Amino acid sequence: MHCLNVELGERSYPIVIGSQLLGDPQNLLPYIRGRQVCVVTNETVAPLYLPQLLAALADFDKVDTIELPDGEAFKTLDTVNRIFDLLLERRHNRSTTLIALGGGVVGDMTGFAAACYQRGVDFVQIPTTLLAQVDSSVGGKTGVNHPLGKNMIGAFYQPRVVLADMATLTTLPEREFSAGVAEVIKYGLICDETFFCWLEGNISRLMARDPQALAYAVDRSCRDKAAVVAEDERESGRRAILNFGHTFGHAIEAVQGYGAWLHGEAVAAGMVMAAELSRLRGAIDAGLIDRIRVLLEAARLPQAAPAGMLTGEFLDAMAVDKKIVDGRLRLVLLRALGDAQVVDDTPKALIEQALRHCGAV
Amino acid sequence: MHCLNVELGERSYPIVIGSQLLGDPQNLLPYIRGRQVCVVTNETVAPLYLPQLLAALADFDKVDTIELPDGEAFKTLDTVNRIFDLLLERRHNRSTTLIALGGGVVGDMTGFAAACYQRGVDFVQIPTTLLAQVDSSVGGKTGVNHPLGKNMIGAFYQPRVVLADMATLTTLPEREFSAGVAEVIKYGLICDETFFCWLEGNISRLMARDPQALAYAVDRSCRDKAAVVAEDERESGRRAILNFGHTFGHAIEAVQGYGAWLHGEAVAAGMVMAAELSRLRGAIDAGLIDRIRVLLEAARLPQAAPAGMLTGEFLDAMAVDKKIVDGRLRLVLLRALGDAQVVDDTPKALIEQALRHCGAV
Repeated sequence: MHCLNVELGERSYPIVIGSQLLGDPQNLLPYIRGRQVCVVTNETVAPLYLPQLLAALADFDKVDTIELPDGEAFKTLDTVNRIFDLLLERRHNRSTTLIALGGGVVGDMTGFAAACYQRGVDFVQIPTTLLAQVDSSVGGKTGVNHPLGKNMIGAFYQPRVVLADMATLTTLPEREFSAGVAEVIKYGLICDETFFCWLEGNISRLMARDPQALAYAVDRSCRDKAAVVAEDERESGRRAILNFGHTFGHAIEAVQGYGAWLHGEAVAAGMVMAAELSRLRGAIDAGLIDRIRVLLEAARLPQAAPAGMLTGEFLDAMAVDKKIVDGRLRLVLLRALGDAQVVDDTPKALIEQALRHCGAV
Repeated sequence: MHCLNVELGERSYPIVIGSQLLGDPQNLLPYIRGRQVCVVTNETVAPLYLPQLLAALADFDKVDTIELPDGEAFKTLDTVNRIFDLLLERRHNRSTTLIALGGGVVGDMTGFAAACYQRGVDFVQIPTTLLAQVDSSVGGKTGVNHPLGKNMIGAFYQPRVVLADMATLTTLPEREFSAGVAEVIKYGLICDETFFCWLEGNISRLMARDPQALAYAVDRSCRDKAAVVAEDERESGRRAILNFGHTFGHAIEAVQGYGAWLHGEAVAAGMVMAAELSRLRGAIDAGLIDRIRVLLEAARLPQAAPAGMLTGEFLDAMAVDKKIVDGRLRLVLLRALGDAQVVDDTPKALIEQALRHCGAV
């Protein structure tokens, strides 16, 4: 069991990483301040892990559970409102704690509900997917989608503790596991050359879900992300490098329809596009692009645009993404392996060229 | 023109108090950082003050306006969602500024929309009612109601600037003006004996809407509230004294149906109840209760429960209010004139007695 601390002043919190954490109440109880809890989970995760969690919570005065439908399509204000309904019907007060048991969608909605319920109650995150463990467990981004854009409504809100239990990854479908690995590879690319090289040497152990390799990768990913977030909690500057591959990836998700490609799959292809654009600007060489493609291939992740997607579709979708400031498209590009930066002066023609090199038509 | 600063570290902001502020763009422009603005107002206020405001905003790249229906009944998540719809349809980005032009309902919803849109954009408050000027302009409480409780969904979020223009109070209906005076009197009672005495001597000038008396009362109220909020931004302790009269008042609003009594009217009666309970606990004498009633009478405000309202209705409604922590009802009571405190050990029988002394049956 490792424990790492996300340093955010009075909002600091620990991430506990290990196996079979859910079975031991002592991993959870020290972080719950009141006598009421509400577990938010979904219909897929509940049969697998809810009984263990409820056993650990048996001594509280009030323990409620809400099972949401599974999937990004339900990450809406209406679904969050169902959480508010339950909390009010069951008279949860300001000292209640919400516990998110599930992947990123459950975590994002539970965190946002906690941020807004009575203007803020405690929440605890138990991410059960690799993506949620290495991404949403650090950084405090919570929120929901809007028909006109992803993650457009939300809050920055930090949990009291995150429990990343490797045991929950054993039941994860293969595509979802790979999608999580995409974000792991991202940390190597943007800020941790050593980790990228470790991944090149250990990708088969990781894909075989070797528990020690997994715990190492989750720990290192969370540390990398925590270091970036600690510098810039509310994303005014450096934190934006975490969006490497995401602006292109969001365009793929938006145009294909959410759910056709998993977020991590879209980010994988988006990272190749961002890397290719970095190469066209002269920052990196073709050899690094090859290394990235080989690693993504081993992780069973796409390395190019969806078949038939147009460069114009990318550009239109990117224009509504959050990364525009006063008319200039901000993109995260590589200066070198392990070194990303935000640029807002990329000519449109160069973006189109990079997209075409990556299969867009 | 006065200017006072609400001191909240990096979230500090000025409140500008004066007459005809809306007409001068220089009161507004220094506080807007991007090139996009969206004015949120309602159908009552728009015809009166929107043209002036839009004239001051003529030079921005994008100026949108949304007119919400007027009234507490529309302070809902659905209405806030209409603001999100407009912002996304019109492609407002993270550097946009929302401007609330209206009373507390408009301000609370606009602030909450700003807190959540793209996880937080700037907002500016132009409160056009006395209540909003002396209450919601300080403290950063934003949010909406839920069918099961008032202000149950929201965020703490600070504006970039507040413009309190006395000129906007000239069109305020008489009942709404009185409702604002209830909160002004509250500041005297809970933390400012000198101000309470000033109000006793100047209540008729104030009720005649003498601009100088008004500006003084708004300034002093905001300073009093700012001093309390600066000590406790997120309401973990002392800030709770601002709820003096509110727990009883919310019960009146909930049982009568929102809108039957104005918030300030309910708070006025609630303050008499809280004062009476303070007397029953031996903290203050009957003479002070008389002074409070005389002042409220001069301000044309109620001093007792609505006809026929039951003590049991009060107690049930108070049980779902936010002021319960682990089963104990927290009430704000007076230790003396100008000195309030939070107590959580009041016997139920004493509360019932106070309610009966104030007209509950």
